[in-house]
Amino acid sequence: GSRIPLTVHEVPTGTRALDWVIPDEWNIRDAYVATADGERVIDFRASNLHVVSYSEPVRTRMRLEELRPRLHVHETRPEWVPYRTSYYERSWGFCAARATLDALPEGTYEVVVDSMLGPGSLTYGECYLPGATEDEVLLSTHVCHPSLANDNLSGIVVLSELASALASERRRLSYRILFAPGTIGSIVWLARNEDRLHHVRAGLVLACLGDAAALTYKRSRQGDARVDRAAAHVVAGRGGRVLDFTPWGWDERQFNSPGFALPVGCLTRSLEGEFPEYHSSADNLDLLRDESLEEAVEALLEILDVLEHDRTYVNLAPKGEPQLGRRGLYPSTGGGAASEEQLALLWVLNQSDGSRSLLDVAERSGLRFDLLRRASDALLRGGLLAESE
Amino acid sequence: GSRIPLTVHEVPTGTRALDWVIPDEWNIRDAYVATADGERVIDFRASNLHVVSYSEPVRTRMRLEELRPRLHVHETRPEWVPYRTSYYERSWGFCAARATLDALPEGTYEVVVDSMLGPGSLTYGECYLPGATEDEVLLSTHVCHPSLANDNLSGIVVLSELASALASERRRLSYRILFAPGTIGSIVWLARNEDRLHHVRAGLVLACLGDAAALTYKRSRQGDARVDRAAAHVVAGRGGRVLDFTPWGWDERQFNSPGFALPVGCLTRSLEGEFPEYHSSADNLDLLRDESLEEAVEALLEILDVLEHDRTYVNLAPKGEPQLGRRGLYPSTGGGAASEEQLALLWVLNQSDGSRSLLDVAERSGLRFDLLRRASDALLRGGLLAESE
Amino acid sequence: GSRIPLTVHEVPTGTRALDWVIPDEWNIRDAYVATADGERVIDFRASNLHVVSYSEPVRTRMRLEELRPRLHVHETRPEWVPYRTSYYERSWGFCAARATLDALPEGTYEVVVDSMLGPGSLTYGECYLPGATEDEVLLSTHVCHPSLANDNLSGIVVLSELASALASERRRLSYRILFAPGTIGSIVWLARNEDRLHHVRAGLVLACLGDAAALTYKRSRQGDARVDRAAAHVVAGRGGRVLDFTPWGWDERQFNSPGFALPVGCLTRSLEGEFPEYHSSADNLDLLRDESLEEAVEALLEILDVLEHDRTYVNLAPKGEPQLGRRGLYPSTGGGAASEEQLALLWVLNQSDGSRSLLDVAERSGLRFDLLRRASDALLRGGLLAESE
Repeated sequence: GSRIPLTVHEVPTGTRALDWVIPDEWNIRDAYVATADGERVIDFRASNLHVVSYSEPVRTRMRLEELRPRLHVHETRPEWVPYRTSYYERSWGFCAARATLDALPEGTYEVVVDSMLGPGSLTYGECYLPGATEDEVLLSTHVCHPSLANDNLSGIVVLSELASALASERRRLSYRILFAPGTIGSIVWLARNEDRLHHVRAGLVLACLGDAAALTYKRSRQGDARVDRAAAHVVAGRGGRVLDFTPWGWDERQFNSPGFALPVGCLTRSLEGEFPEYHSSADNLDLLRDESLEEAVEALLEILDVLEHDRTYVNLAPKGEPQLGRRGLYPSTGGGAASEEQLALLWVLNQSDGSRSLLDVAERSGLRFDLLRRASDALLRGGLLAESE
Repeated sequence: GSRIPLTVHEVPTGTRALDWVIPDEWNIRDAYVATADGERVIDFRASNLHVVSYSEPVRTRMRLEELRPRLHVHETRPEWVPYRTSYYERSWGFCAARATLDALPEGTYEVVVDSMLGPGSLTYGECYLPGATEDEVLLSTHVCHPSLANDNLSGIVVLSELASALASERRRLSYRILFAPGTIGSIVWLARNEDRLHHVRAGLVLACLGDAAALTYKRSRQGDARVDRAAAHVVAGRGGRVLDFTPWGWDERQFNSPGFALPVGCLTRSLEGEFPEYHSSADNLDLLRDESLEEAVEALLEILDVLEHDRTYVNLAPKGEPQLGRRGLYPSTGGGAASEEQLALLWVLNQSDGSRSLLDVAERSGLRFDLLRRASDALLRGGLLAESE
Repeated sequence: GSRIPLTVHEVPTGTRALDWVIPDEWNIRDAYVATADGERVIDFRASNLHVVSYSEPVRTRMRLEELRPRLHVHETRPEWVPYRTSYYERSWGFCAARATLDALPEGTYEVVVDSMLGPGSLTYGECYLPGATEDEVLLSTHVCHPSLANDNLSGIVVLSELASALASERRRLSYRILFAPGTIGSIVWLARNEDRLHHVRAGLVLACLGDAAALTYKRSRQGDARVDRAAAHVVAGRGGRVLDFTPWGWDERQFNSPGFALPVGCLTRSLEGEFPEYHSSADNLDLLRDESLEEAVEALLEILDVLEHDRTYVNLAPKGEPQLGRRGLYPSTGGGAASEEQLALLWVLNQSDGSRSLLDVAERSGLRFDLLRRASDALLRGGLLAESE
């Protein structure tokens, strides 16, 4: 909010949203397991991960053997604290490293979860950047994994930076930027904005953008939406992966549900579960790389640049190649190899019959969109091209 | 016939069938080449393969050099007796291992083929298993290679077993099961059933299912018929091969002729000619493996299961994902990886907009059809899905 | 002209042609750089490559340091003389091996380009071979690189030979054969023939056909034109490469401009720039191989054979396979493997439902077009096939 014009929405608990009801608000002050002499052996103050998220309040004494079913360890990396939640079934529990649990002597422990579950609100932040048209790009990230760096903070950081950059640009498209808790947050937003979803022309869910893996674009359910093609062009051009849609992952699951079927893809590096640190205490700031976050912002700006500037042109001298030399668009001494700039001019001229956009030309030619855009700008200036109706 | 309700049809020789006429019936009692002192050096009683099938009767004495053009050996494996036929040109001949022929001393031999070629009938067996609808699945195998195990008996065994299993199941589809001599048998059946071929919705020709090679599905001429997609899904899922149509092989050649163009594919392991023992005395029971025959029956039941149960559904809570947890369809403690069962639920929900069947979802998701079918059953019970009109 | 009926067209300089104007005619008698004592150190009489093509006249004395910017060497192979042009900007220059230039002592040189730039004409040769129909195949090669062997002479040689062969054949199609200077030549031809371009059903630009690389077919802009499919079938069948269209290369650039969009591909071996000798003195007769030139003619005749003879047939006995044996079209003794000839018969019968041409069958079956053509001829003679309306 200090960087971009953010509106914070509070939606009361109990509100119905599509098939869901906003659950009670959970707040927690403290939680611990302590020995008889008061030593905290598992302590929320060290990390919120030590408590199963959405744990109901408890204040009791238990023998270790009774407590054990409530104590969770990481399945494959016992030295890490796992991240666990129990949103829709009332429960409570603690998470810890195995060594911590193994060191506990038998006996009776004080068990406290000082949490509150009750009326309140679901909170999400929204930033709308109007453009020359009402056509809207939806950009969203989840904000519901406290203490997790790649699978939460990285999306927030990248989307804030991106929003800040977009805010200062001339925009043809409008941008709707969303910071919301996963699943229920996007469901609430969809329910509250159903009457204006027809403006959404493209969208991207951002997550896990800080690790060292290559950029990954997962297509929308539609698969060949404009955003899918723009993102595939940019991500593949940067050596990244392009994957087909799956109804798993983050909030693209909601945006791509069949009743909405919005053209929303997902940009990540590692997918959920692909990096060992996923949903554990090891998904911390050490995992994030500056250059990964920066490249994510760059790639997003490139993708949005395609969406902003993809146009279909008509070659005004379509019979034969026009004489570029006399218009200063061609090297005067022939005989050498064609530069990418020359090829871009020739591709745009050759393909611009009013049926193919610059992105079509980029896909067919293998040339970068920005190169073709510069070529089309030069040809427009040279009077050889006109925008198609 | 002792296992399934089989009708045996006898069609008189001389009957016209499409472009063909049923040729004379061939019966053989005995055949041999014997030395002057009566020793049988080639003997039908040892194996029918020693006589060229459909050999006309002969009873004569010949010098070895005259006889030689009538003696056939295996081209690449001289120790095997080749399988030869001469259905449509009157001729006679013998087949033997090269060593047998090389050991024959010059001299005069008694040559006898005690066969009869004359009026009779073409015989085929047919079993019809009616289902809830008249939509019909045609299952066929050839029965014209006496003594050959993989390229004849395996298809008969598998189809009998399959028919027996189908007979005891509830069937939406009807099944037409055919045991007929190759080429002329299917041509006769087609000619006699032309007015009801419109019921045939899918079909499979079975052959060579007992050897050790992986399952092989060869598509119908149409290439993307429902049976092609169902069989490709099952066979590829079992690590088998899926091949494009060719007008070579077995009776799929007739079913896929352009005047009928029935959606009939072919399930085999080795193709004709792909295994060295093909059309020789080495294609005997030693070549057949129990587990190959059993897997063929299983795979066929799976393919037919897809044809029986492929449906198109509509998600009744299509906006966002429905809350599966409160319906007992989702694990209550989050944070772990998705199970295949969860993914199946989400895929069915995501894709069920009335335009995609479960088989479409199986192809897109890479999940097995039966998993998706169980998911759709659970969602139907949960009130989240309805069958599409 | 001594081998084929060639019409030589002279089009006056200054004539407008599409977006271009025919530039002044360039003729050159002599050119050199000579030392003060008259020794020619760079000499046009040794090779025309020593002068930048289209150099304007000059006769002067210059100090070596002034002259240097006019002296061009090969960028990667300094022992070769590069080929340079300056068609559309008035300039002059010389090309030489680096060693020649390095050996020049400082001092003053006599610099002479005894050229003429003035009114004249653009010259191109055209040969029209009428066929039974006006449907026309355009075959073209460039004639503007004097002294270059692969990137000029090879196309001229192959096209002359091809034209000579076509002249003596019965032709269904008409052939328009063009020898013209690159770019401006095809542009002038297009401008002068615009009203009859609708006859052009297919075309091939020929270039660089004499080197040792595999045959290469570059598709037309359309990509799936009849000529693209015919050429891909033949070239791939000979182990060559098939590439997608690019608006770079030779005169296919003009024929495929969006205002004409003629179905014209390009047959080469190495592409422009793919062989190191490209546009240098090393692209000489030593680079050409007889067998490469001969195979190019053969491949072209094969491609044109597909265009001449591709037909769509209807199987007159479409229900089941017709009995080929009684028509002498099938081996009488069964049991062996199918020959390619048999398969060709079966493929043509199976696919001939009036919707698929022989080229379609060739693509689907993987069999060679000529084999299928022989099969269809045999089936026509046997009364089993008729040409589709």
